[in-house]
Amino acid sequence: MSVNALPPSFRIRPAEADDIPVLLDLIRGLAEYERLLNQMEADEEALRAALFGERRYAEAIIGEVDGEPVGFALYFHSYSTFLGKPGLYLEDLFVKPEHRGAGFGGALLHYVGGVAVERGCGRLEWAVLNWNESAIGFYQKLGAAPLDDWTTYRITGEALQKLAQGTPSPPA
Amino acid sequence: MSVNALPPSFRIRPAEADDIPVLLDLIRGLAEYERLLNQMEADEEALRAALFGERRYAEAIIGEVDGEPVGFALYFHSYSTFLGKPGLYLEDLFVKPEHRGAGFGGALLHYVGGVAVERGCGRLEWAVLNWNESAIGFYQKLGAAPLDDWTTYRITGEALQKLAQGTPSPPA
Repeated sequence: MSVNALPPSFRIRPAEADDIPVLLDLIRGLAEYERLLNQMEADEEALRAALFGERRYAEAIIGEVDGEPVGFALYFHSYSTFLGKPGLYLEDLFVKPEHRGAGFGGALLHYVGGVAVERGCGRLEWAVLNWNESAIGFYQKLGAAPLDDWTTYRITGEALQKLAQGTPSPPA
Repeated sequence: MSVNALPPSFRIRPAEADDIPVLLDLIRGLAEYERLLNQMEADEEALRAALFGERRYAEAIIGEVDGEPVGFALYFHSYSTFLGKPGLYLEDLFVKPEHRGAGFGGALLHYVGGVAVERGCGRLEWAVLNWNESAIGFYQKLGAAPLDDWTTYRITGEALQKLAQGTPSPPA
């Protein structure tokens, strides 16, 4: 297979409500690959509410070969006040291990890039685990740049509850 | 002033369409503080469309003392497939330099934490410039943790256009 030849039976389509069980399987596959299965708390109901409920928090696409899912991507809109434009944040991009190396991941990312441009987004961003060198090499070849000057901070669980309940102390 | 005593005339309220010029001034102040004024491209029209247009990409709050704006925060929803829950991403948090140290930044962050909990979010996240030690110390005291295992990648400008137009090469 030459580098850019995707199988003719490969297609990418937006996920639908019936795809929730398939999507959850793919998300589990990603969590396992990222060694984060212990953090996986989502279930079908939660995923359905987020993707197809009253308030839609994210969108997903599925890559298929002969109608069999081989991978997925899930993304939502961000917003940059400096650019004055929305962005797209790619939360998940995953191809099943047995289907790697065939260009499906690139094709999914290409599709997401197309969504970003079509909607007038100024940027597409995603987070990569630092040990994932093959992914990093791939992203850099595309022209993506690491935001080395920035660190993401996260507050969750009890600390988030506490923040919400009491006025925190100001900086010294 | 004792540590937690905010002036009685201080209040936080959601930004309204009439606040766009004030918000843009505050965003410019933030860009200047972050030494990123050269990246600032937003104008009133773009900001109005994003906050109050047909598709709303972000929400903003304003902190005021005696009706005069002293700071703002701007945030949007993220989504975690592992948690199966939305999150809140704090894009901007800014207090005018002449109003620092009075607890306004903490109060704005407290308000945003309240929004996150009220809406059932599993996490609140934001990015910090690595040189901003006073901010980092403040965030860590609140119980926020840096995501040291992850690096954010960004694709923008021509590279994003190229990604959208052509199927990228698969990983080697």
